[in-house]
Amino acid sequence: MRKSIFLLTGILCLAAGTAYADEGMWTFNEFPSSKVSAAYGFAPGADWLKQLQLSSVRIAGGCSASVVSPNGLVMTNHHCARSCIQSLSGIRKKDYNSDGFIASKLEEEPRCPGMEMNQLSSIEDVTQAVQDATKDKPPEKFNEAQKSAIAGIEKACATSAEWRCDVVTLFRGGQYNLYKYRRLQDIRLVFAPEDAIAFFGGDPDNFNFPRYDLDVSFLRIYGADGKPWKATHYLPFAKTGVQDGELTFVSGNPGGTSRGLTLAQFQDLRDKALPQRLMQLSQARGWMTEYQKRGEEQQRHSNGDLFGIENGLKSVKGKHEALADGAFFASLQKNELDFRSRLAGNPALFAEYGDVWDNIATITAKRQDLRKTVSAVQDTFGSSLMTIARSIVRHADERNKPNGNRLPEFSDARLPQMVQRVLSAAPIYKELEIAKIRHGLTKMREDLSPDHPLVKKLLGNKTPDQVATELVRGTKLDELKTNAKGEPTAGLRKILWDADSKTVAASDDPLLRFVASYDPEARAARKLNEELVEGPLKKQEERLAKARFALYGSKVYPDATFTLRLSYGRVVGWMEDGVPVAPFTDIAGAYRRHTGAEPFALPESWLKARAKVNPKTPFNLVTNNDIIGGNSGSPMVNKNGEVIGLVFDGNIHSLGGDYGFDEKLNRTVAVDSRALLEALDHVYAAGHIAAEIRAGQK
Amino acid sequence: MRKSIFLLTGILCLAAGTAYADEGMWTFNEFPSSKVSAAYGFAPGADWLKQLQLSSVRIAGGCSASVVSPNGLVMTNHHCARSCIQSLSGIRKKDYNSDGFIASKLEEEPRCPGMEMNQLSSIEDVTQAVQDATKDKPPEKFNEAQKSAIAGIEKACATSAEWRCDVVTLFRGGQYNLYKYRRLQDIRLVFAPEDAIAFFGGDPDNFNFPRYDLDVSFLRIYGADGKPWKATHYLPFAKTGVQDGELTFVSGNPGGTSRGLTLAQFQDLRDKALPQRLMQLSQARGWMTEYQKRGEEQQRHSNGDLFGIENGLKSVKGKHEALADGAFFASLQKNELDFRSRLAGNPALFAEYGDVWDNIATITAKRQDLRKTVSAVQDTFGSSLMTIARSIVRHADERNKPNGNRLPEFSDARLPQMVQRVLSAAPIYKELEIAKIRHGLTKMREDLSPDHPLVKKLLGNKTPDQVATELVRGTKLDELKTNAKGEPTAGLRKILWDADSKTVAASDDPLLRFVASYDPEARAARKLNEELVEGPLKKQEERLAKARFALYGSKVYPDATFTLRLSYGRVVGWMEDGVPVAPFTDIAGAYRRHTGAEPFALPESWLKARAKVNPKTPFNLVTNNDIIGGNSGSPMVNKNGEVIGLVFDGNIHSLGGDYGFDEKLNRTVAVDSRALLEALDHVYAAGHIAAEIRAGQK
Repeated sequence: MRKSIFLLTGILCLAAGTAYADEGMWTFNEFPSSKVSAAYGFAPGADWLKQLQLSSVRIAGGCSASVVSPNGLVMTNHHCARSCIQSLSGIRKKDYNSDGFIASKLEEEPRCPGMEMNQLSSIEDVTQAVQDATKDKPPEKFNEAQKSAIAGIEKACATSAEWRCDVVTLFRGGQYNLYKYRRLQDIRLVFAPEDAIAFFGGDPDNFNFPRYDLDVSFLRIYGADGKPWKATHYLPFAKTGVQDGELTFVSGNPGGTSRGLTLAQFQDLRDKALPQRLMQLSQARGWMTEYQKRGEEQQRHSNGDLFGIENGLKSVKGKHEALADGAFFASLQKNELDFRSRLAGNPALFAEYGDVWDNIATITAKRQDLRKTVSAVQDTFGSSLMTIARSIVRHADERNKPNGNRLPEFSDARLPQMVQRVLSAAPIYKELEIAKIRHGLTKMREDLSPDHPLVKKLLGNKTPDQVATELVRGTKLDELKTNAKGEPTAGLRKILWDADSKTVAASDDPLLRFVASYDPEARAARKLNEELVEGPLKKQEERLAKARFALYGSKVYPDATFTLRLSYGRVVGWMEDGVPVAPFTDIAGAYRRHTGAEPFALPESWLKARAKVNPKTPFNLVTNNDIIGGNSGSPMVNKNGEVIGLVFDGNIHSLGGDYGFDEKLNRTVAVDSRALLEALDHVYAAGHIAAEIRAGQK
Repeated sequence: MRKSIFLLTGILCLAAGTAYADEGMWTFNEFPSSKVSAAYGFAPGADWLKQLQLSSVRIAGGCSASVVSPNGLVMTNHHCARSCIQSLSGIRKKDYNSDGFIASKLEEEPRCPGMEMNQLSSIEDVTQAVQDATKDKPPEKFNEAQKSAIAGIEKACATSAEWRCDVVTLFRGGQYNLYKYRRLQDIRLVFAPEDAIAFFGGDPDNFNFPRYDLDVSFLRIYGADGKPWKATHYLPFAKTGVQDGELTFVSGNPGGTSRGLTLAQFQDLRDKALPQRLMQLSQARGWMTEYQKRGEEQQRHSNGDLFGIENGLKSVKGKHEALADGAFFASLQKNELDFRSRLAGNPALFAEYGDVWDNIATITAKRQDLRKTVSAVQDTFGSSLMTIARSIVRHADERNKPNGNRLPEFSDARLPQMVQRVLSAAPIYKELEIAKIRHGLTKMREDLSPDHPLVKKLLGNKTPDQVATELVRGTKLDELKTNAKGEPTAGLRKILWDADSKTVAASDDPLLRFVASYDPEARAARKLNEELVEGPLKKQEERLAKARFALYGSKVYPDATFTLRLSYGRVVGWMEDGVPVAPFTDIAGAYRRHTGAEPFALPESWLKARAKVNPKTPFNLVTNNDIIGGNSGSPMVNKNGEVIGLVFDGNIHSLGGDYGFDEKLNRTVAVDSRALLEALDHVYAAGHIAAEIRAGQK
């Protein structure tokens, strides 16, 4: 099912203030239980919310998950564990992505290199402290002052490497909340089905429905003692599943929405930012699709990247189509007009905030001027080696600075996550790295022009291909030894990460030298952007948020920020071009859709199990929960707080959800909990996992 | 030099009626000599115009050219002869693209497979006849009726295969003129420099300036007697070249402009049509760049395609950037507002034409609905074999219909060009064909959805890769034998082209069967689009043109239509971000820009000749002539009608010229005639060509 027209009757925008219907990605500390009660007769209480919050975990890379047994068993999507699956395949010379993986006992659960999960422990309002720090600062100093204040707050909170603390900007600047997380760093793989069923239908079916995907993986959190983590909170599976019309909750980490932007910013997205991104992703998709034809090994190495690119492309396409829809854009115009005329009707507020839209428009124009340069100079082309090299170069400098003056990612509170990434044992594929850097340098030359001094410096008398090949062939930054626990012990990467700035400066590693050679330019571009765009914009968005609170009240939800949010809704289909789409699919449908040709080929295990599985088992379902990218892997629970589904996607209309929620069309797509158990029981030799889950049922 | 901001002071739009300054791609029969005279003191007379018209030739594939000696020597761009150069390389197992080609005598001039040139012989106004044929037709019958009338007019004109006759729609429907061309079909290659100097700077420098390209090739027209064509008209080279500020003319075939569109259409371009095209071209660029890494041979085979894709991408990017520029778009809005308020001020005209903008908006919305389907079903994916297969399938049907009822490309007047293309001896590379069809089928599945009946029918239980491989490996449509003259004599392709519909229907060639299997759907989509979009739009655009003539008078130039046009202007640099760009580069600059790494590596011949060439020779130059894609290869002449340059590009600002001409920034880029002679004399062993050219000098 696909459709690019956005019906408008249901679109309600954050900008207009009040959220009706089941709209909203609410914070756990400001959840509108009374609204839920009014609509569904059930009001989530404090304990109910706490239990769900502490059973939810975030995957640092950009996904959601939940604990589903007292022994730290975690449920998330297959596509959220893809990099783990792919790394382990590389390390063990297997193809778990294609073949699936099942640990039949704890000893067979291998550690996922570089993976980290965070459990949200508490939320604290620090608005006053953050706003005080910037109160009298000019726009170009705003960012620096705020950064320093935030680093201080985060450091005071993150008392050991066990904790992660983030000051989160809500309402694009109206509120600042301190989120404190427990860091869970020993994550192991328990179960993954074959990619062919996890992503059945592939890119063509992605963001579409009806759907038949078992997009699940089970992981396990281990404690510092090397034993399964004793979870105090976890979500039991519902015994009976969920019915059409039933109340549903989704707890997860929507990555970001832009419902609070101004028209100037929407226009920038529609006309400049998104088209540029569409081109970039389309080109990356093109070359990587063709790269996969080099051979099976190269295909395996690049599968994860290609998935990410195609998923991103489809998502950006959906967003662009939403803004390109004349009627949808008119609704955004209407919202802003309403806001502005309300403000104009209040002379005191108008005197205070009347210039905010023009200011944002001016900053947006500046952003357009700087965009290509700023991003070209800071891009590491998706290359692991370049990212590592830049981190090492900067770490050597940043470690000598006071906490508040460092680049935020090097602040004391955030450094542990960076170590986790830089010193990860995930394998690095040099052939793929060459291709990425080659394409990246070509794009840099295109964006900056061949006459730009930096391009001349970096390419000299060579082609991007020559430069990329020499750098990757010559570098030893891939060298890293780890012990059985996955901790780095030796190798050039470890040595240079730990080294002082003099040693790093003296290293003759060609990639390190290359990256270091233009780090001043990269830092300068970042700083320029912070001073001329980000800082001034934060200041204006803070004012915009204040004006909005003043005119619309504060009972609204903030734009998504990849922090834990709760959405409520119900199981409900929708009308597509006048044709009803039912909310459930069943397992029989997957067999009907099987053609035998990728991406519509069921794996062997499913073909063999055909007689054993119950074809009537609900497979995937849709609800009107308000979610967005980052919610992948979120648990879907009923009013008893029991798992009824595993969120893995939205329908095609959900993509416009970045800018506004359309209750008539916007749908969340989940794997039904009954399908999860049915597959563990009857398709895979994984009854022990089903048993571990069932042990918690009430 | 690159810049994406369009200054507006100079933008004057066709929609606003009057063209000021040096704007305009004028027809030869309505050339505004008095305007030129007022500005430059020289009024081109009838003889002057006739001499230039008959010395200009159009290359059927999409370029311009000129005759420069009485022995039929033709000058055009290297990139306009690229497919010839590449075909000959394939046939002879050489790499003329990389190495260059020089025929030292007539016997060494090989025929370019499938190449045709057209010399514009006469122009006749047939507006009345065409408009009469559609006068009382409802919108959905408009196209059919017009097509039939046009086929009749063209057939009566094209009295033998020696002539080509096209009814050209001017002013988007305000006028219909019959263009009669002499067909010149035996074209041979005389001289081509190395790609490295023809396209020095490659994609990065394309559409930029300063520039250092020898983008030239010389061809020769041969008559039916197999001897060089005795040209009655040709352009001599100027003896002294051209100076800054001097009056210049460009005679060539601009492919198309859209200056007369309505806002609804501009909006469609900005928000839907162009972004889709950007994605498609970006993806094609990605996969083909990577395809080139398969090996040297594959690189050679795909060089021409990649050039076309990158050139197209950059051009579409420029167009999109123009429309995405808020100030530019506002100027288009202002133009339409002016037009509409003038109309509103004239009650009689308003009653007659007042609804035309709304009607066009409605048709544009319909076009958006149909676009993806219509184009997916009709696409032949850039594959030569698929294009041939479809032509054969349709030819078998169309040949049995009366002339006026056929698809226009099969009408008696146009069939000879199709034969020339279908039965061309240009080599076909099956590996590349597989890749093209694979990517094409994947895109078709994406655009139509995997559930579309046609997608199910074409892919069945196979992947796009499997289908493409089987079709291309199995087909024998590449089989074609030609005699020494390049005429087809045998082979399956020739047999099936000549066969009746029963024989074609009985062929078991897999690709032919594949294409035939959905030809009904492809035809139906085309017909639907003609009935619901093209026909109704033509009717409305005709009305719009009438309203414009009525309000603004008829002394305006029509949108470009890939027919012969004349532009006047002068040698003049421009200001880029406040910095002046000089109008000339010299040969010394090329040596300075040489890095040794592709695309900034001069070929051996130039490195060796360094001491011999005069470094001060002007190399490339810019003028403010109003041109657009299709003008490549156009001669640039002075007021004596002498060649002073060879147009090969526009600057980056010229790309927005599709929608409006900005005299301050829009520039034509040409090779200086002095550089052409200098290179022939001192870089290449091609003094005999220089001598042939000089023999005509006055």
